[in-house]
Amino acid sequence: MPTIIFEPTGRRVEVEAGANLLELCRQHGVPIESLCGGNGACGKCAVQVIDGDVPITNEQRVHFSDEQLAGGWRLACQTRVEHDVRVTVPVPASALAGRIMTSGEAPAVELKPAVRKHLVKLDPATPNDPTSDADRIRLRIPDGARLRFRPSALRKLPEALQLGKDAVTATVWKDTILDVEAGDTFLGNYGIAFDVGTSTVAALLVDLNTGHELGVAAGLNPQRRYGEDVISRIAYCREHADGAERLARVIAGLLSDLAAQVTVGRDLRHVGEYVAVGNTTMAHLVAGVDPSSLGELPYAPVFTAPQTMLDGPKGARLGHKPLEIPDALGGFVGSDVLTAAVALGLHTKPGKRLFLDIGTNAEIVAGGRDRMLAASAAAGPAFEGAKIECGMIGSAGAIDSCRVENDDLVFGVIGNVAPAGLCGSGLVDTVATLLDLGVINDSGRLLPPDECPKTVPAKVRDRLHEADGMTRITLAGDVYLSQRDIRELQNAKAAIAAGVEILLRHLGIAPDDLDEVLIAGAFGSTLDPLSAQRIGVIPRVALNKVRALGNTALQGAKAYLLSTDFRQEVSAVADHIDLRDLSAEPDFMDRFAAHMPFGAIAR
Amino acid sequence: MPTIIFEPTGRRVEVEAGANLLELCRQHGVPIESLCGGNGACGKCAVQVIDGDVPITNEQRVHFSDEQLAGGWRLACQTRVEHDVRVTVPVPASALAGRIMTSGEAPAVELKPAVRKHLVKLDPATPNDPTSDADRIRLRIPDGARLRFRPSALRKLPEALQLGKDAVTATVWKDTILDVEAGDTFLGNYGIAFDVGTSTVAALLVDLNTGHELGVAAGLNPQRRYGEDVISRIAYCREHADGAERLARVIAGLLSDLAAQVTVGRDLRHVGEYVAVGNTTMAHLVAGVDPSSLGELPYAPVFTAPQTMLDGPKGARLGHKPLEIPDALGGFVGSDVLTAAVALGLHTKPGKRLFLDIGTNAEIVAGGRDRMLAASAAAGPAFEGAKIECGMIGSAGAIDSCRVENDDLVFGVIGNVAPAGLCGSGLVDTVATLLDLGVINDSGRLLPPDECPKTVPAKVRDRLHEADGMTRITLAGDVYLSQRDIRELQNAKAAIAAGVEILLRHLGIAPDDLDEVLIAGAFGSTLDPLSAQRIGVIPRVALNKVRALGNTALQGAKAYLLSTDFRQEVSAVADHIDLRDLSAEPDFMDRFAAHMPFGAIAR
Repeated sequence: MPTIIFEPTGRRVEVEAGANLLELCRQHGVPIESLCGGNGACGKCAVQVIDGDVPITNEQRVHFSDEQLAGGWRLACQTRVEHDVRVTVPVPASALAGRIMTSGEAPAVELKPAVRKHLVKLDPATPNDPTSDADRIRLRIPDGARLRFRPSALRKLPEALQLGKDAVTATVWKDTILDVEAGDTFLGNYGIAFDVGTSTVAALLVDLNTGHELGVAAGLNPQRRYGEDVISRIAYCREHADGAERLARVIAGLLSDLAAQVTVGRDLRHVGEYVAVGNTTMAHLVAGVDPSSLGELPYAPVFTAPQTMLDGPKGARLGHKPLEIPDALGGFVGSDVLTAAVALGLHTKPGKRLFLDIGTNAEIVAGGRDRMLAASAAAGPAFEGAKIECGMIGSAGAIDSCRVENDDLVFGVIGNVAPAGLCGSGLVDTVATLLDLGVINDSGRLLPPDECPKTVPAKVRDRLHEADGMTRITLAGDVYLSQRDIRELQNAKAAIAAGVEILLRHLGIAPDDLDEVLIAGAFGSTLDPLSAQRIGVIPRVALNKVRALGNTALQGAKAYLLSTDFRQEVSAVADHIDLRDLSAEPDFMDRFAAHMPFGAIAR
Repeated sequence: MPTIIFEPTGRRVEVEAGANLLELCRQHGVPIESLCGGNGACGKCAVQVIDGDVPITNEQRVHFSDEQLAGGWRLACQTRVEHDVRVTVPVPASALAGRIMTSGEAPAVELKPAVRKHLVKLDPATPNDPTSDADRIRLRIPDGARLRFRPSALRKLPEALQLGKDAVTATVWKDTILDVEAGDTFLGNYGIAFDVGTSTVAALLVDLNTGHELGVAAGLNPQRRYGEDVISRIAYCREHADGAERLARVIAGLLSDLAAQVTVGRDLRHVGEYVAVGNTTMAHLVAGVDPSSLGELPYAPVFTAPQTMLDGPKGARLGHKPLEIPDALGGFVGSDVLTAAVALGLHTKPGKRLFLDIGTNAEIVAGGRDRMLAASAAAGPAFEGAKIECGMIGSAGAIDSCRVENDDLVFGVIGNVAPAGLCGSGLVDTVATLLDLGVINDSGRLLPPDECPKTVPAKVRDRLHEADGMTRITLAGDVYLSQRDIRELQNAKAAIAAGVEILLRHLGIAPDDLDEVLIAGAFGSTLDPLSAQRIGVIPRVALNKVRALGNTALQGAKAYLLSTDFRQEVSAVADHIDLRDLSAEPDFMDRFAAHMPFGAIAR
């Protein structure tokens, strides 16, 4: 029987030879889109075969270019699995919805993209008029005198004019004519926003004519094999002469793959610009810059100013279009946090706010119009499900919530499939539930069955058992939570809570003075605010002041993509925010220790 | 006995095995530089071995990098020829002097290059200061806030700071930091000006800190194997799908070779910018743009506005530095003529001028401050020595002048070597001399010995003989001038003279009203003004008004390299000059026919 491995989860199943791949996905709970009922019409069920052979039929040719077919792209509904295969099934927008800030939270930026398309119809040239074709096009574009052709666009111009019978569509980016295409391609004007996280990378396709979101794709950061967190990847760069180059290459590869995924059924050549936000180490590696200096005193980044890579990152397959990296605040607070803070209007809205972006590190921004502080807390990756024994990223199969029902624990699972692990929000929810039940005590100890309070239901008590001399609790199937996992979470939440306490103290803000607490992060689905307060990662303000936003970085990158005014605002806010180094705060370790128990309350 | 082929002339000689290459060059009249007497000290006698094997000795390693050695570079004085070899011997500046506008003619531009170097010494970074290394460098450069790092410079920054112990030299080009180097490299700041002619290409190395000329190199345009003139090369592009790409590749290769030649002994990485001028077809091909539209009605160029190629032409080995192509006037009057006209001050000086640039085509610019006209005359390549039976370009071995001495013809030969052919200026001088003697009559007929006037000296008469039913005259050795050659020259000069006549008429200028007649061109050495008048290619104004300038294009390109103000001036003058199409002039053919005889005088 052939074996299928589904990426990005790595799930492996044995199947009947000749089975239909779309049906197999549904049968095994792998989220996949399809609108036409599997008759090859809609093209939504595109998957990428990474290993194994799937023949190219005529049905496949309808939807894919030769290049895409050679790259393994197939319609799942038209594919029969005869041999072992490994396929990437793009995560559908619907399954990712929880991870993306909803449209209600999206910033209201005025549509003013850096990329505009112009359809130009030239009159036939007349002899005696020495005006070049390039100039005749520039003159037909509003304010076109300032424009310059990029050499590659100029090279395409003669053929485009010929094929288009004197009608061409020019793609203008800032002061440059980036591209010319034969005929009218005005409607194909896309941008892609990347959120380059340490663990996961997401891509959002945006229509630059309308501002509409057209699709998302996400994947695991393949740099993980060089180290789980930024510190270990910086160490890798310091220890290997070609380390930074290697890490840059793999991230360029993933960005290219995600761009191909998110544009399937559209033309990648119609993507006019890319924006990549991320922590400062990721931004360095996207730019191909060695981040080693971030690993030693004085921890100075090589750059924080916005960067433009005219042809995209080295080795990337992004159609040689510009990629922009927005401003970072410093070595440990990057463009992901800054653009999100600006998109959320922290610097313009009245009132005082706390914004937490919890990823592999946690970044904190606090304050308001008058004064804003930011810091990074070395929380570790527990909130992303990493370093947790059954941890996983928040994709299909991850437990992302927990509640008590009929005297037992009941779990929510992303994609409504069999549970495969525990993501960050599931971890927080489960620990909060167990704290409420008394199965975990305030010091963080997971109690053995005989020490549990009498009030703990038998079904929950029965889940507890000992392994390796420590207590564990079985959640579902093979998925469990261990004492060690709880200690990881305590470390993480104490670092964040101590950082929050110190920043608010510098600003002279008491937790109750906060008008809003905003939590963002790629922890699976949105964090439950009550659970977050229960474990003590955020201050105990009135619950209606807490908003869990999911992945704000992607929305920040989207705003950057949509508006050149927003870009200027980001640079201005970068100068306005005062970055603090928590490790230089004399009482940080003391406050960190104080926040370790679950009963702790900020002073 | 081993055979040596000397490039670019293609001269072939047999030599003793083991002979010293520097001595062989001198022995066979191949111009070569050497200052140290051949002991390997000065590095001036660098040659490039193209075919054949010359072992790499330790003496060679002193002067060349591994890459240069792999590319065939050797010191001639340290090389013994044991086997067959083909070598390029860079033409020394002294041998090219006649072809380069002398310094007295060089435009007085204020030194204001686009490339500046800045030595920056950073204070050690302090913890708690989140300022990035890139920003700390920008802040140390005057007006540095506007600067942006090019991604490749950013990538080099960490290592440069480490190697340079916090001292780096930044190369600033316009608003971009192009490069950073460890330590102080302020003095290495070069630019290269290219004159890309249809037949020959020249490169001039300029010190951008001082404006001084540091060296020249020249080579034959390898596109010649795809057609002698621009028309046949455009036809090649029209007939072959990859024609333009192929022609672009070979010119990119030659520019790279010339840049390597002209920087031997220096560091190519210290070249911060390139400027390439040329006719519009050559400019298209340097930019990699298909010039096919120049070959059919309405003969519109793809571009005439200035172009910047940030990484240099595709496939070129120019260190990924920017190459600028200045404005062209139109499809048949290019940046070579325009920049030269501006460098000569035609648009600023009082008075009325005629400027002729005679290459494979001839371009004419006439007028003054108030009004200027330009046109191109399809003269053909006779003035460059092409389509002449014993014709050659103006390099070593070319007859470049002719006079009567002791009742016989006496010839000047470039490089004072045995004559190998006839270049453009030699052709004009020889025909003028034979016209004065009466050996050629006014209709252009080369008379057989028995029809010559009695006054023709016997020694000259004895040179005349019949071949293929037509008369020929032997000049020196195997080099002769044929009746067909004279007809080619008549065609060429008639086209130019008709064009000049028509432009002057449009301007309402009589030849005698001209304050100056300026002649430029790569016709060997400078054209003798009297001979030029004698054959009727220029109007018969007072001789003191005629100036022969040699290659003005290279000086125009140099001015462009040295001054960003000059660049703006060039664009402004491009708008000021009115380009005329001679083929659309109703009486062009009539005037062309009228100028065919040598006795013709402009009406």
